Amino acid sequence: MHRTRVRIVEDALDANNTIARANRDDFDRHGVGVVNLMSAPGAGKTTLLERALDDLPGVRVGVLEGDVAGSFDADRLSLLHIPVAQLNTGAGFGGECHLDANMVRTALPALPLAELDLLVIENVGNLVCPAEFRVGEDARIMICSVTEGEDKPLKYPLMFRACELVLVNKIDLLPHLAFDVDRLLANLEAVNPGVRHMLVSAHTGEGVDDFRDWLAAVPARVRAAA
Amino acid sequence: MHRTRVRIVEDALDANNTIARANRDDFDRHGVGVVNLMSAPGAGKTTLLERALDDLPGVRVGVLEGDVAGSFDADRLSLLHIPVAQLNTGAGFGGECHLDANMVRTALPALPLAELDLLVIENVGNLVCPAEFRVGEDARIMICSVTEGEDKPLKYPLMFRACELVLVNKIDLLPHLAFDVDRLLANLEAVNPGVRHMLVSAHTGEGVDDFRDWLAAVPARVRAAA
Repeated sequence: MHRTRVRIVEDALDANNTIARANRDDFDRHGVGVVNLMSAPGAGKTTLLERALDDLPGVRVGVLEGDVAGSFDADRLSLLHIPVAQLNTGAGFGGECHLDANMVRTALPALPLAELDLLVIENVGNLVCPAEFRVGEDARIMICSVTEGEDKPLKYPLMFRACELVLVNKIDLLPHLAFDVDRLLANLEAVNPGVRHMLVSAHTGEGVDDFRDWLAAVPARVRAAA
Repeated sequence: MHRTRVRIVEDALDANNTIARANRDDFDRHGVGVVNLMSAPGAGKTTLLERALDDLPGVRVGVLEGDVAGSFDADRLSLLHIPVAQLNTGAGFGGECHLDANMVRTALPALPLAELDLLVIENVGNLVCPAEFRVGEDARIMICSVTEGEDKPLKYPLMFRACELVLVNKIDLLPHLAFDVDRLLANLEAVNPGVRHMLVSAHTGEGVDDFRDWLAAVPARVRAAA
């Protein structure tokens, strides 16, 4: 039974990767750099995007919002006057806990790819399954907030290993928490040696300039690699 | 294809419910009340259990710890000198994002059910899939922390609907957050009208007495209902 399950999972991931490559081809054809933004629920993905995308110099950005239900985050980001498409995963059943390549593919017609340099895909809030499904992105970013505890890289290693950039958010709350940043970074280094990280506060804006610069450089990086 | 997926999901849930009933029978035979504790990663499940289980009057309690990887939480709770069993969901693949009835069943031999009145099952940190899989519990508790934002009941409605008790944790941080408790409670009422809630701080201990009393009453409530 376990072997059957493994085979079903492998088949599902193979199918996912095939569709992810088709998404990638579409992104390349339009010259769009794509990042997949992941975190636990409430780590601050949308608030950070509100800050970072508000003034992205010389980069035409769009957002694909993934949520089980509702369009709260898409509504917030639409106020930035950028193209935002909503993808809900909650049809029928309790809801999918992640985006996969096919869901992203079905949402692409709602986005003007030809008019974008950068697409940010905001995944469903979850530290497990989103890391398992490539959607055709160039880079994966994960946000962990300092209210979640220093042990998270060790408890959710695949997520912390899967990303090229880790944002440590809510550092404005550090004076009020028993949280050891060095311990978090040591745990991060243990599961993903050398991964880039930034300390940020989406609330106060501290560190957000660095993240904005990093995002703004994605399209050029992707074109240089092509 | 969508219909096939729905059928596979329904079959999986049917199989899960069958095993959940077998777990339930075992719990009943030993007179054990069982609660399933769920939350997003880092909402404070383990810290709250450290506080609440340390002095549970007249109730013999054990814990089943669900994690993708590691035994950090089980190690912490073992210091309370209560029976703790660890269940890791991360074999091979990136890891299961929830506990199901069969995983719990495989872990039961590691727990002295005959010597327990109450079993607390700490689920994997996730606001989606844990709500979809009954494991044989009497009650489901979910913790949301005030650092996660007021919109969570609307974004993860199944989780907030699935539980009999909602703990709003980390209220010690309220003075440092732009968080509106009344708005959270209104959103909670919208998805699960009349559900019981408690405001707590696992850090300072505020409100934990009420939760401890609620937990301590579970075995008697289960026996009365049998």
